[in-house]
Amino acid sequence: MTQVLNARRGKITDQMWSVSRQEGIPAETIREGIAQGLIVIPFNKAHPGLKPCGIGLGMSTKVNANLGTSSVFPEWTHEVEKMEAALSAGADAVMDLSTGGEIPSCRQHLLENCPVPIGTVPIYEAAVRTRSQGQLVVEMEPDELFRVIEEQAAAGVDFITVHCGVTRSIVEKLRHQPRLMGIVSRGGAMMAGWILHRQQENPLYAQYDRLLEICKLYDVTLSLGDGMRPGCLADATDRVQLEELMILGDLVRLAREAGVQVMVEGPGHVPFDQIEANVKLQKRLCHGAPFYVLGPLVTDIAAGYDHIASAIGGTLAAIAGADFLCYVTPSEHLGLPTAADVRDGVIASRIAAHAADIVKGLPGALARDLAMAEARRDLDWDKQMTLALDPARARQIRQERNPMLQDVCSMCGEFCAIDLVSRCFSKAGSGE
Amino acid sequence: MTQVLNARRGKITDQMWSVSRQEGIPAETIREGIAQGLIVIPFNKAHPGLKPCGIGLGMSTKVNANLGTSSVFPEWTHEVEKMEAALSAGADAVMDLSTGGEIPSCRQHLLENCPVPIGTVPIYEAAVRTRSQGQLVVEMEPDELFRVIEEQAAAGVDFITVHCGVTRSIVEKLRHQPRLMGIVSRGGAMMAGWILHRQQENPLYAQYDRLLEICKLYDVTLSLGDGMRPGCLADATDRVQLEELMILGDLVRLAREAGVQVMVEGPGHVPFDQIEANVKLQKRLCHGAPFYVLGPLVTDIAAGYDHIASAIGGTLAAIAGADFLCYVTPSEHLGLPTAADVRDGVIASRIAAHAADIVKGLPGALARDLAMAEARRDLDWDKQMTLALDPARARQIRQERNPMLQDVCSMCGEFCAIDLVSRCFSKAGSGE
Repeated sequence: MTQVLNARRGKITDQMWSVSRQEGIPAETIREGIAQGLIVIPFNKAHPGLKPCGIGLGMSTKVNANLGTSSVFPEWTHEVEKMEAALSAGADAVMDLSTGGEIPSCRQHLLENCPVPIGTVPIYEAAVRTRSQGQLVVEMEPDELFRVIEEQAAAGVDFITVHCGVTRSIVEKLRHQPRLMGIVSRGGAMMAGWILHRQQENPLYAQYDRLLEICKLYDVTLSLGDGMRPGCLADATDRVQLEELMILGDLVRLAREAGVQVMVEGPGHVPFDQIEANVKLQKRLCHGAPFYVLGPLVTDIAAGYDHIASAIGGTLAAIAGADFLCYVTPSEHLGLPTAADVRDGVIASRIAAHAADIVKGLPGALARDLAMAEARRDLDWDKQMTLALDPARARQIRQERNPMLQDVCSMCGEFCAIDLVSRCFSKAGSGE
Repeated sequence: MTQVLNARRGKITDQMWSVSRQEGIPAETIREGIAQGLIVIPFNKAHPGLKPCGIGLGMSTKVNANLGTSSVFPEWTHEVEKMEAALSAGADAVMDLSTGGEIPSCRQHLLENCPVPIGTVPIYEAAVRTRSQGQLVVEMEPDELFRVIEEQAAAGVDFITVHCGVTRSIVEKLRHQPRLMGIVSRGGAMMAGWILHRQQENPLYAQYDRLLEICKLYDVTLSLGDGMRPGCLADATDRVQLEELMILGDLVRLAREAGVQVMVEGPGHVPFDQIEANVKLQKRLCHGAPFYVLGPLVTDIAAGYDHIASAIGGTLAAIAGADFLCYVTPSEHLGLPTAADVRDGVIASRIAAHAADIVKGLPGALARDLAMAEARRDLDWDKQMTLALDPARARQIRQERNPMLQDVCSMCGEFCAIDLVSRCFSKAGSGE
């Protein structure tokens, strides 16, 4: 029995109660949001030690960290370290995008140690298996793909990205109406290549009901991937992107009818002034489904600092209604991230999520900023460090840059504005 | 003869021609913008080797890096290193905010080696001199302050921040309508303390004509400081901030009448949804004067990452009309920045400025993103590195994360979407 089917029957599950407590929102509101498909709780009962996490309307904005092996870095132990970095930086979810080494082992180790929902992109493992059998990725057997999906669901994966909207007709359109960067989604590219090679319809679209059956059985949340997401500003909000989005909207309805939790993924590289339109279109065309965006990056030239380009776009996207931000790390476009990159990526996205939650007026969002402002006014450094988004980093900088212990800091020293004003105003106030 | 007086007489100066070439905008448009006070070119003829820089309507968004000694770190050589870091990261201007050690020496070394405009906050040096004479900052003699201003102008400083809008009446209002953090501007706090201590009007306001005479003589651009800028989200856009802004608007008119170039400074800590209003109010109340914002920071809790909180706010501010972004470094609120912090701060602000220039539709802004997208599509790594905002950093990450030289990168390896799509589409296109 999935969360959504329970919700529709009026039942508030343990997971809904837990999300209600975390968010400071009545459980009945959570239940109703889930029943309507406006909120999801990715929660696979086979994932040990999982803490429920609500994503969607009225929830605080959540942050996902991607990690996973690649053929150049196949060692899963590094990915467990990255997961720990992501969790300690405050990630709300983790995706295992492994394409190298022992993929099931990596996933298993992550699942056993991860209290937040774990997502995957099953076509990656199917592609690796296909290659290991000496075939090209585009020769993948649909049954192999569904086998991987079922195995991952049985193993405890909480949400899966599936590129169901990359249809034959869209791939044809893309051939005749090219865009600057074509397809940059890995899963989308695999699916498009398969379609062109086999001259058949996308099996995740053609056999969508088969996919829904698996998801319903394990209560795996569908994350409908945007295979046509723009890979550069010039391709943003173009025809193929919107055509795919419309198909995803149809697939949202079908998933809801089947009692499957579903969210929708979105771009990507988007100029700042097109971000709000992208979110509004997704919310309208996909019937209010939770929106999971990658970035968006507001420029293409920030290689080495794409976590910043992404935090800029992510703030506006979340304010406009996006519910779930996929982080981008400083090594995006350059190579596989390190654990330090993972940390930087999560923190940047958390800044975006928090800045947006303040504007969304979510319960408790501004309270931490108010407490920080009071600690600053009082020059209470311990409290400032505790309230910082990343206390360890804040403490480290304070220690390094302040060789002499002092009430003020080494930027202003004795010319500290706060110190000066508090002395002058209290003197003036006391009539001295 | 100042730039603005030349412009009003129809003369296009060498500096205007230079800005015209850099910006790709007709020199006559620059001249007209300067004549109307909508553009400034901070350009003190005593600053050796200075390259003109246009700030204001229709210009690309500029980035300033603050540096300078403090009592804990009085060594000026470090500040020269930070200036070099700022310049190599692409800063368009530098402010020397020194309050420790040999302040005139530090400034002189910066001026001699800095091809971009240099700004100062003269009250800092006046405060240090006052303290060195055994007096409290609030006992500062107005003549001492004006002496410092004239000396700095004669030395070649291109623009000065002066907190003329911190008037006696505003300080009184603040006493009776307190805000959470009071005054966080150092110069504003000194001025407010002086007013409370001496029970006299702010000399920079009372003797504004004296200030204008000095600025006119050396063509120093006035940057009207916002002493009442909010130090936390809770204080943003409040009554004292707006009262000061209205006074600054009056002072803009007076500066223009005197033939002095003038810009206006703005906040600070501002929730994302109040940023546009802040910019529009400044533009309206200050008659279109170039707007120079610090951040704005969209949350108070990002200590250690305030360059990111600032890039988020800076992007929206620039899109809404801000012309000049003052960077914030990762060590803001914690201590004096290092050269590495300076670099990170400049790059973060440049991402914001560039993302905004794309939306502003400025000549050439999107072209670099288009070129980057083409280089990515073609997997042309050399070109990607050259086009990156910080080529050195992008190269470093690429080298570290790609132990085996390859066409693709270590994130996707053989599953590179771009590689896969280009092979599939070209095969399909050739009818294979």
